[in-house]
Amino acid sequence: MADSPGPGTAGTSSRGSHALARYLPILGWARSYDRHVLTSDLVAAIIVTIMLIPQSLAYALLAGLPPVVGLYASILPLVAYAIFGTSRTLAVGPVAVVSLMTASAAGAVAAQGTELYLEAAITLAALSGIMLAVLGFLRLGFLANLLSHPVISGFITASGILIATSQIRHILGVEARGDTWPAMLRSLANAVDTINPWTLVIGLPATAFLFWVRKGLKPALVSLGLPTRAADIVAKAGPVIAVAVTILAALSFDLGARGVDLVGAIPQGLPPFALPSTDPDLIARLWVPALLISVIGFVESVSVAQTLAAKRRQRIAPDQELIGLGAANIASAVSGGYPVTGGFARSVVNFEAGAETPAAGAYTALGIALAGLFLTPLLFHLPIATLAATIIVAVLALVDLKTPGQLWRYSKGDFAAHVATIAITLAAGVELGVIAGVVVGLLLYLWRASRPHAAIVGRVPETEHFRNVERHRVFTVPHVLSIRIDESLTYLNARWLEEYVLEEVADRPAVRHVILMCSAVNEIDASGLESLEAINHRLIDAGIGLHLSEVKGPVMDRLQRTHFTAELNGRVYLSQNRAFGDLAKNGGPPEAVPADMARGMI
Amino acid sequence: MADSPGPGTAGTSSRGSHALARYLPILGWARSYDRHVLTSDLVAAIIVTIMLIPQSLAYALLAGLPPVVGLYASILPLVAYAIFGTSRTLAVGPVAVVSLMTASAAGAVAAQGTELYLEAAITLAALSGIMLAVLGFLRLGFLANLLSHPVISGFITASGILIATSQIRHILGVEARGDTWPAMLRSLANAVDTINPWTLVIGLPATAFLFWVRKGLKPALVSLGLPTRAADIVAKAGPVIAVAVTILAALSFDLGARGVDLVGAIPQGLPPFALPSTDPDLIARLWVPALLISVIGFVESVSVAQTLAAKRRQRIAPDQELIGLGAANIASAVSGGYPVTGGFARSVVNFEAGAETPAAGAYTALGIALAGLFLTPLLFHLPIATLAATIIVAVLALVDLKTPGQLWRYSKGDFAAHVATIAITLAAGVELGVIAGVVVGLLLYLWRASRPHAAIVGRVPETEHFRNVERHRVFTVPHVLSIRIDESLTYLNARWLEEYVLEEVADRPAVRHVILMCSAVNEIDASGLESLEAINHRLIDAGIGLHLSEVKGPVMDRLQRTHFTAELNGRVYLSQNRAFGDLAKNGGPPEAVPADMARGMI
Repeated sequence: MADSPGPGTAGTSSRGSHALARYLPILGWARSYDRHVLTSDLVAAIIVTIMLIPQSLAYALLAGLPPVVGLYASILPLVAYAIFGTSRTLAVGPVAVVSLMTASAAGAVAAQGTELYLEAAITLAALSGIMLAVLGFLRLGFLANLLSHPVISGFITASGILIATSQIRHILGVEARGDTWPAMLRSLANAVDTINPWTLVIGLPATAFLFWVRKGLKPALVSLGLPTRAADIVAKAGPVIAVAVTILAALSFDLGARGVDLVGAIPQGLPPFALPSTDPDLIARLWVPALLISVIGFVESVSVAQTLAAKRRQRIAPDQELIGLGAANIASAVSGGYPVTGGFARSVVNFEAGAETPAAGAYTALGIALAGLFLTPLLFHLPIATLAATIIVAVLALVDLKTPGQLWRYSKGDFAAHVATIAITLAAGVELGVIAGVVVGLLLYLWRASRPHAAIVGRVPETEHFRNVERHRVFTVPHVLSIRIDESLTYLNARWLEEYVLEEVADRPAVRHVILMCSAVNEIDASGLESLEAINHRLIDAGIGLHLSEVKGPVMDRLQRTHFTAELNGRVYLSQNRAFGDLAKNGGPPEAVPADMARGMI
Repeated sequence: MADSPGPGTAGTSSRGSHALARYLPILGWARSYDRHVLTSDLVAAIIVTIMLIPQSLAYALLAGLPPVVGLYASILPLVAYAIFGTSRTLAVGPVAVVSLMTASAAGAVAAQGTELYLEAAITLAALSGIMLAVLGFLRLGFLANLLSHPVISGFITASGILIATSQIRHILGVEARGDTWPAMLRSLANAVDTINPWTLVIGLPATAFLFWVRKGLKPALVSLGLPTRAADIVAKAGPVIAVAVTILAALSFDLGARGVDLVGAIPQGLPPFALPSTDPDLIARLWVPALLISVIGFVESVSVAQTLAAKRRQRIAPDQELIGLGAANIASAVSGGYPVTGGFARSVVNFEAGAETPAAGAYTALGIALAGLFLTPLLFHLPIATLAATIIVAVLALVDLKTPGQLWRYSKGDFAAHVATIAITLAAGVELGVIAGVVVGLLLYLWRASRPHAAIVGRVPETEHFRNVERHRVFTVPHVLSIRIDESLTYLNARWLEEYVLEEVADRPAVRHVILMCSAVNEIDASGLESLEAINHRLIDAGIGLHLSEVKGPVMDRLQRTHFTAELNGRVYLSQNRAFGDLAKNGGPPEAVPADMARGMI
């Protein structure tokens, strides 16, 4: 999969242009671009632009940055992704979880509102962009697999709770801080005396309205006969209505003078182009959070992109996606933005509004740029509480309360990883939460890998099948011990294998032959081979034959490059049935089998 | 295995005494201790004591510590291991690799010869002892599996080279330093002008003599009719001869006055009992090296113990071994010693000299204590060069030049881990070497796990077997696609599974049924289950049936706790043969199968 080029490269003629098309997927789709596709992309771009304006302001607020930084992060990154990305419908820009992570990382370096805080956010985008691009060129996308589904869903749930809690202060109009849930709750509790009633009058109805739009409006529109897709898009426009109404309210009642926080003046114009900081001290303090932002952003983006691509039978190339997202983040950094990735909600809107190529993203960028040039004065009176309400309503959809119960029933280990990720993210913040999730998942995996499943098997009567003697009525003979090894033999379980086989043999004095049934052994690494050799030598000492059956082709190919098959005190059989048939007849000690003959059995 | 008690606990009657016997293996063997066993143990103890005296002085020198610290580390730790250890023949004490690691860790904190350096070495023993004991109580011995055979052998080879190089300065009688190989070589090259000829006159013949004892004397004794075992033991006494002869030479020619470094005054008496440092700053700087010393010491010790136990059909309990080694290190720390573990050479001597119980270790401790009380004045004139020669000859046996070639032929990944460990240990020191070995091994493992093997299979004519269509002449039909998945479905490869199955289906428009043959699937975690559900839903969209065959019992048990089997658009078959037989006949779209019926097939 990692080697597959982006979509649309089938027609390239030479090797050079093939490589170029891999790294520049735009060469694939741009050639077949026509008026019909242009219309579809433009319609989608207009809808996404309308949705993205309040969203980009809100997520900049969540990241602790001036609102205009959210707009900057929604222009050039979209153009860069359109050139380098492989998903046709992914909409790139600021997203909730990455904004929260940015706030946490930049907040550890400087206070919100300072020049250094903004510099840190921009540096995070630059570092993250470089890391993503390097991972993409080195084809290291597989490292994202370290985040299992339970860890990701736990992290997203906990982030949703953290984000919603962090915005409550804007609804109440109070000062509160904190990177962890206990700190946030404590800070809110301390500030409860200073609630601004006018802010509350804006914030609570806005939140309630947006909840209703999400939960009530869409079903209402559908029952009025609107197609589900259109109803969905209208419901997604709810924030725009809230923005317009609360701006009018703020103007009408002069809420700014009554202590309601407003967005205020947003600098008009195009993004400022500048190279990000190269301060080694800042980089040293930010590279770990930048790596975590990269990985989380990549995983979130790739799963959205894959879901959407599958619906239209298209494909994405994960390693090229790293390059696409890397380019987007570098573009964000040089234009005064902060880390971006592919967002779920807006990508779905883009897809459902009919976007056909990444050009839709470029048109959206144009729309945001125009908004930055002409619309910002209108946003002067926008209450911050309205933006907080859009964030709260958006992120509560991330909180998933069903998964823990499902995981508990299916797998205690996955449940443990999920709950540990939620608990540590809430209690210790996003960075430690991600790291803990990866470490817990890996430790559980290694623990299971070090004590794999194996079974003594016997023949199911009147078949050629061998099943577990403890689960089936099967035929065995006392002098032949058939062990099915249910795992690849790697260094993680090499010690286990030796102990297991020798112990089972020690418990059965009548055994003259051991057959290791290797149908589930997909690999034998050097440590596993050493254990097999040790078992063979110890069984030779005990006058017991060691045989293998159902060894897979690739595994056998490698075993034949060693002395093991020649030294094996027994045969390698194609099938367990033949091995058992041969050895069950013969009760004596094993005959010496020439190695060539043993190999001939394969 | 981890739950098995130590040897000899079979006769305990109650639950309480069972638990006690697990943690105090001495209760197992002490009851059957008789005069015959006592004699065997005493003989072995005398031989090991003679061998251990020069060795403990030499390894203390290697660790950069006063010689007496080596004696202290060879008394109380042996008694503690005799009480808590499960190996009957393991000989605990200072060993080469751990001494090198101690020198590296203590040298990072203080200069050799200072009070703080000694304090750091003692603290390392205390920390390492506590860590080992905690790992043992938590049953975390499996973490040692993270060190694969190729990584361990690479680390041992590189350590052997580093140790031998570090001792050359004592043979030349020069000052030289360095924790890495390049630094050591550079330092030696700079010091070449200051070579002391008298030191060389002692050092070179001693080295040559010890090489000859090892390589020439043993075969000579064997050809003279001495049994191999006895010849081995005599050859191991070579260092004692070298010590005696060079002491006489130093006395006769007054070499101390000619600039030859001598051991000098060793404090007489029993070890000083004291609690180790609790300075939090020192602990913060030493816990990482202490952890690495613990893991390396444990792995080295356990593999020696397992090898020896297997020869006498005894068993060791790895988790209790952690407690035994932990107790030994704590004992070392409170009696002025430095980190210890089970040594290969002296354990083999102990075993071959006939030791039958850990009491032999306690008698050895007594021997060393007597030596400390009465023999140390005799060692005043022992040249340091003699000790360096014994170290060089001992550790060059650790350097293994055959393994790289074998690994290259068998497995490029294991070769890479081996060579990376050697290179980084030589270039960057022992701590980074171990860490790099673990990380490289783990990354390669995860990379392989993320792109597992799978095969399209068909029926071998006139059998019930299904093999890879690319390797065998097999029977298939166009509307049935049988995929054998050669790996457990875990979060590491969940994404791969989705891509692989959907791509193979997309390439074959005639396919109406997909059978996933799960004979090699030992586990399906929550992420793997989610991928199966996604595949099922997408195949439903495409009007294709999804069937499973040869699902293992434990895997099926868990799948039945989910909605997956009910939602599956197809059946679960006991055998691939029956699945293929059923579906090959039926060319149309899959019939709806009631979930209960599908479950009934298991």
